[in-house]
Amino acid sequence: MKIDVIAFDADDTLWENEVLYQHAQERLRDILSPWADAEIIDKVLYDTEMRNLPLYGYGIKAFSLSMIETAVHISEGEISGEDVSRILDIAQSMLQAEVELRPYVRETLEALSGKYPLMVITKGDLLDQTSKIKRSGLEDFFSITEIINDKTPEAYQAILQRHGIEPERFLMVGNSLRSDVLPVLELGGKAVYIPAETTWSHEVVSEFDDQSDGFFELDHLGELPVWLMGIELCSA
Amino acid sequence: MKIDVIAFDADDTLWENEVLYQHAQERLRDILSPWADAEIIDKVLYDTEMRNLPLYGYGIKAFSLSMIETAVHISEGEISGEDVSRILDIAQSMLQAEVELRPYVRETLEALSGKYPLMVITKGDLLDQTSKIKRSGLEDFFSITEIINDKTPEAYQAILQRHGIEPERFLMVGNSLRSDVLPVLELGGKAVYIPAETTWSHEVVSEFDDQSDGFFELDHLGELPVWLMGIELCSA
Repeated sequence: MKIDVIAFDADDTLWENEVLYQHAQERLRDILSPWADAEIIDKVLYDTEMRNLPLYGYGIKAFSLSMIETAVHISEGEISGEDVSRILDIAQSMLQAEVELRPYVRETLEALSGKYPLMVITKGDLLDQTSKIKRSGLEDFFSITEIINDKTPEAYQAILQRHGIEPERFLMVGNSLRSDVLPVLELGGKAVYIPAETTWSHEVVSEFDDQSDGFFELDHLGELPVWLMGIELCSA
Repeated sequence: MKIDVIAFDADDTLWENEVLYQHAQERLRDILSPWADAEIIDKVLYDTEMRNLPLYGYGIKAFSLSMIETAVHISEGEISGEDVSRILDIAQSMLQAEVELRPYVRETLEALSGKYPLMVITKGDLLDQTSKIKRSGLEDFFSITEIINDKTPEAYQAILQRHGIEPERFLMVGNSLRSDVLPVLELGGKAVYIPAETTWSHEVVSEFDDQSDGFFELDHLGELPVWLMGIELCSA
């Protein structure tokens, strides 16, 4: 096994992200508490997000429009302008939130960046993701950044082709089986899965064979350099 | 003068776009007519968009969040849930609007695509722009598509570098002096300006020297192939 290029997912792999959404959702529950309890609100919000996904895509602006739609729906139109304004404030604070790196990120990238070309492959809002990569202070570790609409096998294939990377020598590292692991395995690539503490339910895969070819799981990103050392030895 | 690559702006160059926003704005004026007249609404909306631009970027989702903020502000919080819902409907109908090609687009791209590598360079929302390129039926004419956050000289320079294009052999075609012409001229490239009937006030440049080096203006896209024939002759 030989690895030519290592690509990292960004949200919840390099930096915290899902917690931002969960915190936003708590604030929404609070705003809508006169009309419904948390469980209903969560369900309507998730259904709204899923219905809007083909049109809005991923990201904070999409999420915010879905929060507002949820608020109108749950309140049966009774929501006040002031409350709508509070939801807009949530959007703005999410977009400006500090980028909080996940454990071991910086030292792992430092250890690997001299040895492998490193990429970021992330989905969602172009401006927000560009801005987070800049604000993270990690930009210089990556030779290529790809921001795509969705992490489908076709989207990965287009990236590999564009950069002349052979799938079997490509390693993707991320926290989502659905987005970072399955499509890459489907192309014959390798994937290291690093579970995050919290994962958006949309990213959860109910059935997955952890004995799949090319699949590996590590507890945290700090284990990656040592794991790669092992691979280098056996391919030497 | 020799041209290696021709790049086209998309919105209001390849297809109609500003009319969508103007139509949306008319609907917003209608919704907010109990509280303010058109002039005030337009001004507050524009100021809101400009204030949110660094955070939201360009595109329909950004515009929609700014429409909602404007509605809350203009109505002093009196806006009803039903009206907020109508604004969300505007957003959805904008995102689903048919892609209407501008005059001469298809025949011009057909005439040029065998002779030059063609690119699209557009700013705004990643998903919406990707979707419009697909829905336009023009995708196959372009060897490269670049969707960027903003059309700054730095952004153009990064694109030229990535694809190994010499600035002086690069031709950008578009309807915005601010986004398609000035930054390209600044890099030493060439630009063909094709004014659209309606241009967003943000894109309007008050002072521009139309004798600038590398600047050309045509009445419509259909004139481009003949103009290029002239250039080919003089560079032969």
